[in-house]
Amino acid sequence: MELLVATGNAHKLVELGPLFPGHLLKRPADVGHPAFDVEENGTTYVENALIKARALYALTGRPSLADDSGLAVHAMGGAPGVLSARYGSEDGRRKLDSVERNALLLKNCEGFEDRRCAFVCALALILDEERIFIIQETCPGELLRAPRGEGGFGYDPIVFLPELDKSVAELSQDEKNRVSHRGRAGRRMACLLAELEAAP
Amino acid sequence: MELLVATGNAHKLVELGPLFPGHLLKRPADVGHPAFDVEENGTTYVENALIKARALYALTGRPSLADDSGLAVHAMGGAPGVLSARYGSEDGRRKLDSVERNALLLKNCEGFEDRRCAFVCALALILDEERIFIIQETCPGELLRAPRGEGGFGYDPIVFLPELDKSVAELSQDEKNRVSHRGRAGRRMACLLAELEAAP
Repeated sequence: MELLVATGNAHKLVELGPLFPGHLLKRPADVGHPAFDVEENGTTYVENALIKARALYALTGRPSLADDSGLAVHAMGGAPGVLSARYGSEDGRRKLDSVERNALLLKNCEGFEDRRCAFVCALALILDEERIFIIQETCPGELLRAPRGEGGFGYDPIVFLPELDKSVAELSQDEKNRVSHRGRAGRRMACLLAELEAAP
Repeated sequence: MELLVATGNAHKLVELGPLFPGHLLKRPADVGHPAFDVEENGTTYVENALIKARALYALTGRPSLADDSGLAVHAMGGAPGVLSARYGSEDGRRKLDSVERNALLLKNCEGFEDRRCAFVCALALILDEERIFIIQETCPGELLRAPRGEGGFGYDPIVFLPELDKSVAELSQDEKNRVSHRGRAGRRMACLLAELEAAP
């Protein structure tokens, strides 16, 4: 199946591709909408993923997939959560880059004994006017005290996975897809697509 | 897996049971919450299903499943939709029973040549704090001119399925589960649960 992906984030497309073998993932720009953009003003990951997928479906009428993800820190009650990409740039301040954001989050969490955190990913697929699949999955980990690793993107260098004894930024793309929030959500969505093709 | 179902509607529980073989479906009353109730004030089926599932999960901390469903009439832009159960009883008027609601809807649709409609069902499952599965599926049909059949509930007697040459109220429970919005959504959700047990 051809799926449009409502994202301008090239990293996300690179991660999603291998999760949907047998499907063709395209960007809005590939179907004549290079300026596709939408305000993510929801209060939950599911809401934001739906906002993006619905906007792309309204524009194209084709099956539209969107991802919304973030990092939830337990000791911060799930923050930065849906605001992860904008962390530290509230109130109109300039958007921080990943290195600055990671440093700020670690500084703000310095005093926390409870280091539990989880990456969260909501994937929403609009198939047609009334058919929708949504999967929200997680990758639980622990907040490091300093960044580690060069791979991945965003908060990957400051999240440690005890079972693998690595930060997320130290994983290969294959390893990351096996355990990540986006990998888990993507595989479940692919499972739904396989079932959809068997029983439309 | 044991699943709590956020519904007071016995019909829905009867329909959902066979869709989840190998799982144990329980009502809030079965786990000590006979008065469980929540205001469904969302504007979409997904939102309402999530409101109910989240409320039950917040109360119990156990995997919580909720259904929100309705009838979307094409010529009415998808109405009555999420307001299907309250159709005709807006502005504080007394709630109509199914027979009255069906009669009112058919009367209000008398002039429509376009009889297309679709039952829509959103199922939301909250597994834990951050893991959520949502499936919204449909059962497309045509609005009859007068009720037919004694089975089912709600709008079933006024929706005709051309492929089966029957109204939804003329289907056996097995037939209904095979083609209905709730049957389709339930089977996809069961497929996700099977995959979840294979790959937690």
